[in-house]
Amino acid sequence: MFTVACLACQFAVDTTRDLRACPSCGGPLGFGYDKALVSFAHEDPSMWRFRSLLPVGSGTEAVTLGEGGTPLTRARLDLGCQLYWKNETVNPSGSHKDRAMSVALTRARALGISTVFVASAGSTGLAAASYAAAAGLRCVVLVGEEASVARLLPLRVLGSDVYRVHGSVDDALDLLENAGWAAGIHDVSTRRASNPYQAEGPKTIAYEIFASLGRVPDWVVIPVGGGGTLAAAARGFAELVELGMADRIPRLAAVQPSVCATLVVARERGIHSDAEMRAAAPAERPVTIQIKLAHTYAPDGAEALEALDRTRGVALAATDAEAIDGVRRLGASEGIFAEPSSGVVVPAVEQLVRDGLAGPDDLVVGLVCGNGFRETESLAGESRTLDVFVPSVDPSAFLRSLVRP
Amino acid sequence: MFTVACLACQFAVDTTRDLRACPSCGGPLGFGYDKALVSFAHEDPSMWRFRSLLPVGSGTEAVTLGEGGTPLTRARLDLGCQLYWKNETVNPSGSHKDRAMSVALTRARALGISTVFVASAGSTGLAAASYAAAAGLRCVVLVGEEASVARLLPLRVLGSDVYRVHGSVDDALDLLENAGWAAGIHDVSTRRASNPYQAEGPKTIAYEIFASLGRVPDWVVIPVGGGGTLAAAARGFAELVELGMADRIPRLAAVQPSVCATLVVARERGIHSDAEMRAAAPAERPVTIQIKLAHTYAPDGAEALEALDRTRGVALAATDAEAIDGVRRLGASEGIFAEPSSGVVVPAVEQLVRDGLAGPDDLVVGLVCGNGFRETESLAGESRTLDVFVPSVDPSAFLRSLVRP
Repeated sequence: MFTVACLACQFAVDTTRDLRACPSCGGPLGFGYDKALVSFAHEDPSMWRFRSLLPVGSGTEAVTLGEGGTPLTRARLDLGCQLYWKNETVNPSGSHKDRAMSVALTRARALGISTVFVASAGSTGLAAASYAAAAGLRCVVLVGEEASVARLLPLRVLGSDVYRVHGSVDDALDLLENAGWAAGIHDVSTRRASNPYQAEGPKTIAYEIFASLGRVPDWVVIPVGGGGTLAAAARGFAELVELGMADRIPRLAAVQPSVCATLVVARERGIHSDAEMRAAAPAERPVTIQIKLAHTYAPDGAEALEALDRTRGVALAATDAEAIDGVRRLGASEGIFAEPSSGVVVPAVEQLVRDGLAGPDDLVVGLVCGNGFRETESLAGESRTLDVFVPSVDPSAFLRSLVRP
Repeated sequence: MFTVACLACQFAVDTTRDLRACPSCGGPLGFGYDKALVSFAHEDPSMWRFRSLLPVGSGTEAVTLGEGGTPLTRARLDLGCQLYWKNETVNPSGSHKDRAMSVALTRARALGISTVFVASAGSTGLAAASYAAAAGLRCVVLVGEEASVARLLPLRVLGSDVYRVHGSVDDALDLLENAGWAAGIHDVSTRRASNPYQAEGPKTIAYEIFASLGRVPDWVVIPVGGGGTLAAAARGFAELVELGMADRIPRLAAVQPSVCATLVVARERGIHSDAEMRAAAPAERPVTIQIKLAHTYAPDGAEALEALDRTRGVALAATDAEAIDGVRRLGASEGIFAEPSSGVVVPAVEQLVRDGLAGPDDLVVGLVCGNGFRETESLAGESRTLDVFVPSVDPSAFLRSLVRP
């Protein structure tokens, strides 16, 4: 039971139509739910226990691989606050994007779509390929010219068709927006203007954090590429307040690569709209190992900025060196093998504490979005010392010498 | 509340001692539980909801990353039976070995161990490194000389020390058994003789399958490397019968690489003991892309054979071509990106049906043990067609041509 309306002009849209923008004014579409009908199915371990707050009809079968229900674990690292990790790497295709794609492919199949298209450099493409396969739909993934073959192989194994566009993933998004819409294709890319349905999936991260902790944290720290996940988290917590389940919303911290910290720049310049963000975008694509976060502008930047304003949030930036250091510390101290684009959550938490925004009594949740197995290229520097043999003479003494006193 | 006893001479062992074999006769150790105290904590989504059937003291804090509680999804592939996948790729380090390592590191930490050692070519090493990090313990991983650097990098990021041994993973297991035990090191390798505690973790797969289906399946199909997971599944189902929860145990099918189908060979030759299996092992290490299953002998082979006998099970073999074909079909039809060592579950189910052992009314569960992201080397053949660009002239027509009619 959901309704669709334009977020700009409030025009009510027929939920059975395949629309991605307001047919009246072209504005972005959002969703409403009958709060009286909200109930959570506690026996379902996946994110679909929150189905009554997702945009699917009551008779619609979900396209699911068991996404969501990811672990919330107490951090061993002492960064000066009460710290937990929401470990989104434990999703079927290895990232939080599975939540968005589970909703998007459920919608696409319910509409009778045969083929979905997506522009992605990484996690979204993998998720789209996985859920399209699970739905029995064809999936076409458009990637930038820089995407490595190693990153594309799993897409082929998952049965999707992969094509490159000249330029970056932002150019691929634009190509789908222009040539694609003219062609009447169904786009599942993760920005609201491409597909408003997917934008509801990551709300469930907020619901799960609240359910696991039994309270609202003081801060949630979120790596930002497009900005949609951050905006969805804010919306999810706000819904819990509306439902009378939570008493407040947490503050949100966005963290982006320092070479393309578009939210930081926007706040400095007083920018609020997507058009302004696009106008401020550099011509060159950002060069960073934080590939999942590398955008010349944040495709859902306006709503991410609004979410930061609403939650008294902050926009932070992390260098590639900090990202790699974060990966090492998540690995060696927490046992979580994250991608560099998620390693940034560690320096971001440190900065919150350094800036006096979070202290020893504050409950902070860091979102670890994607696993590092899908991106081992960036670890090449770690390969020293990987060809040391256990000596044949007195191996016992050698093994004993390795035991930590 | 658990007890430890020798499976050979029934000698009762003090649960506080760090032993891996019977102090009386050297036999393998097993566990008993007070059935009157068994209860399942349904609010815990991890495998620790079954804690009352795991060998940990009541006051012991588990070393957990949220392992278990993995999805059981209905197959889209029609292989001639009622087929489900138990998707163990959705575990913190990407495989079912997380269950074993969560128990092993919980035990190691409770004993006050500082450093754990493990011999592994793949999943076990990753799991050991992850859980040692989560436990705050040092981890030393011994690998064979053939292990690729790409496979070892994540181990370094997870903070473990990696050393090679001359020979294969079987030689690494032997080195730990001989030189390691002499050195008094704590071994968490996944075979009962190395560490009986870890052997209890994978029992929870059986409990979860039963809980998800609400009944016992007719068949469970399990890729076999060492044999411990298969034996644990049989034991888990048997415990459910003892507890009066299930009325029977399923039949089990083991599938191994055709070049080292040691259980098939053992059954043909009437071999039952580990000593006989070791004596029958070839000198050369098996060459196969099913690297997680490549052993010259199955380290837990005797109990795997016993489990097959007890469940009226079968031992099957799959070629590398079948494994890759299985990976492709799990990917493109199910949206599950599996490693070749798990792709074999597809031809194994087909063989059960072809041999008349499973039919249209039979409920079959295939275990997909590990994800393919950790092993993209084996996919190099998929790289054709990954440099096709969307044309600049009339991209709309091109995109439209990709829509499946």
